[in-house]
Amino acid sequence: MEVPQRLLMGPGPSNAHPRILAAQSLPLLGHMHPPFLKIMDEISDGLRYLFQTDSKYTLMVSGTGHAGMEAAIANLLEPGEKIIVGVNGIWGERVADLSERYQGQVITMNAQPGKTFSSAELKAAVAQHKPAILFLVQGESSTGTHQALGDGLGEACKAAGTLLVVDTVASLGGVPLFADKWGIDCIYSGSQKCLSGPPGAAPFFMSERAMDKLRSRKTKPATYNLDMNLIGDYWGWFGSRSYHHTGPVSTFYAMREALQIVADEGLDKMWARHLAAHQQLWEGLHSLGLQSYVENDADRLITVNTIKVPEGVDWAKVVKNAMDKYNLEIAGGLGPSAGKVWRIGLMGYNATPTNVALVIEAFRDGLKQQGKL
Amino acid sequence: MEVPQRLLMGPGPSNAHPRILAAQSLPLLGHMHPPFLKIMDEISDGLRYLFQTDSKYTLMVSGTGHAGMEAAIANLLEPGEKIIVGVNGIWGERVADLSERYQGQVITMNAQPGKTFSSAELKAAVAQHKPAILFLVQGESSTGTHQALGDGLGEACKAAGTLLVVDTVASLGGVPLFADKWGIDCIYSGSQKCLSGPPGAAPFFMSERAMDKLRSRKTKPATYNLDMNLIGDYWGWFGSRSYHHTGPVSTFYAMREALQIVADEGLDKMWARHLAAHQQLWEGLHSLGLQSYVENDADRLITVNTIKVPEGVDWAKVVKNAMDKYNLEIAGGLGPSAGKVWRIGLMGYNATPTNVALVIEAFRDGLKQQGKL
Repeated sequence: MEVPQRLLMGPGPSNAHPRILAAQSLPLLGHMHPPFLKIMDEISDGLRYLFQTDSKYTLMVSGTGHAGMEAAIANLLEPGEKIIVGVNGIWGERVADLSERYQGQVITMNAQPGKTFSSAELKAAVAQHKPAILFLVQGESSTGTHQALGDGLGEACKAAGTLLVVDTVASLGGVPLFADKWGIDCIYSGSQKCLSGPPGAAPFFMSERAMDKLRSRKTKPATYNLDMNLIGDYWGWFGSRSYHHTGPVSTFYAMREALQIVADEGLDKMWARHLAAHQQLWEGLHSLGLQSYVENDADRLITVNTIKVPEGVDWAKVVKNAMDKYNLEIAGGLGPSAGKVWRIGLMGYNATPTNVALVIEAFRDGLKQQGKL
Repeated sequence: MEVPQRLLMGPGPSNAHPRILAAQSLPLLGHMHPPFLKIMDEISDGLRYLFQTDSKYTLMVSGTGHAGMEAAIANLLEPGEKIIVGVNGIWGERVADLSERYQGQVITMNAQPGKTFSSAELKAAVAQHKPAILFLVQGESSTGTHQALGDGLGEACKAAGTLLVVDTVASLGGVPLFADKWGIDCIYSGSQKCLSGPPGAAPFFMSERAMDKLRSRKTKPATYNLDMNLIGDYWGWFGSRSYHHTGPVSTFYAMREALQIVADEGLDKMWARHLAAHQQLWEGLHSLGLQSYVENDADRLITVNTIKVPEGVDWAKVVKNAMDKYNLEIAGGLGPSAGKVWRIGLMGYNATPTNVALVIEAFRDGLKQQGKL
């Protein structure tokens, strides 16, 4: 098996922290052994800090961010219920698809790629439709936008009997998030972005309101594998512990270590480090004449940056040169941004001045080769 | 994080092979990078050997064995269709539950725990009901039984327009299995048993007939996360490669290495090694006066052995003594066998004369302490 060493500065996975990779080579424990259950409890605790919540209901879904997405919808949406899905990139599109599969009545709200939703329009939509769920993506990695979530949105959802469900795959740990303060009801994320772990684990949170909804469902969720009643029971949410699936032991170790690293640094410092990396990146890119795809400063996601491909530049050549010359991953666009942007991830372990400097240098070199500097 | 070193001789997870744990600390690659796609191709190849098939349609589901189970049912059973589920332990029960969630018409065939189904009764049921699926468990780890699968069962299914779907979580790599020769249409397994990997990956196989069924579905599978049309497309089944989810990179490395280890040893030798461990175990246990829970020799699963708890013996004390004194996991029963048996797994890296000798010694010591020897 050949595994070259690369610096992964695309939208993820980012490079894993060496401590996390090392944790994955620890010997296995049984998935119901007390020392393993202790590790699970510590993961739940670490997630409470990361999500900024006092809710009992945090755990790591044994699957990728997509499994987290499906767990949120499959458990909280019953057939026939309304869901408003904010679509401004591919993640919203996927949730709309997924919600139809789960027989929800899907109402899409669309924003142009590179734009986000205003608090006023979201509140109005919730008040109008009173859906079971309002779904939003905090960090839309296909377009590089950051959706604001505070400003009374949670209260508006509560007033309408709506659960606020948020995708934070590309943002969690990199930008501020306050589950309780903002009144969010369900959040899922991924391990391979700002948490510096390998992909394959989905941090997951539910509020008491979300749990009430799950408890009062008329039908079982269609999925057994992601039924939160059963998974929660394995994680000790309800006081006891029952076997549901065999926890992916090494992946749990990795998440435990990732959350330790978050706690060691502290969220405030971690957010500040990500912001500093973003500022350093744009200072460099602006000096090369490059511009952001996202026009409004306030809409920019600092963890996944979208950079407009200037007219006459072959974006793929810049990507290829970075990989060939520096073993450096710069990514192209995805979905609505395909062919129009480069995407630079500044996430977790990778969000350092050294790495950002190399990215800027790779753009300089790539543009120079095409006679654009 | 405290992770004690233990010898895991229960029904799984078993100890991971050191080469596999080491593979998990390799640096990450992007989930669409060519060197990573090559590793995926090598996994598909390795799985073809392991399943003994020429089918194009092999891959590793990014989830535990349960995700594999759900993938099989969610993709191959449409709402309203009939499925016959062979139930002789908890895995069949779970598939029956899961199939109801996916709106199948479930027909359960029951065998007493510790018994299996005869080829004749299975063929008769298939001919009578002509279900969309016949589901069987090759290695029922809750009771320690091995279900025979050859003897024309595949042909009978084909004649009835039925897909033969088999759970091999506890058996794959430990006992003979011939997907093509036996006419099996879909198989899933787990990584943490005879493949000596950490839990979290589900080897998966579909025949051309199963793929035809998937192609001709009238409805999309309810699950997006496990939709084999989309996952297959990520694995290159249909010629191109599309992003579906972010492959759990470290887990792919682990599976790649696990399959290399299988290929290095060779299936014939691997099956023989598991059989030898089973024989050694029972020679020792019989000398202690212990008996198999599964009465018929032909029904015994060699990879997960169920041992009757003799009258007057406290099974939990034997388990506790083994753990306290030898750091050795011996497991109790599960589902129908709870409180009635001990379960000993002889799987993968752990199926060695040294480990079996320690297990026998732990039983000797545990029984002696209770004055039963």
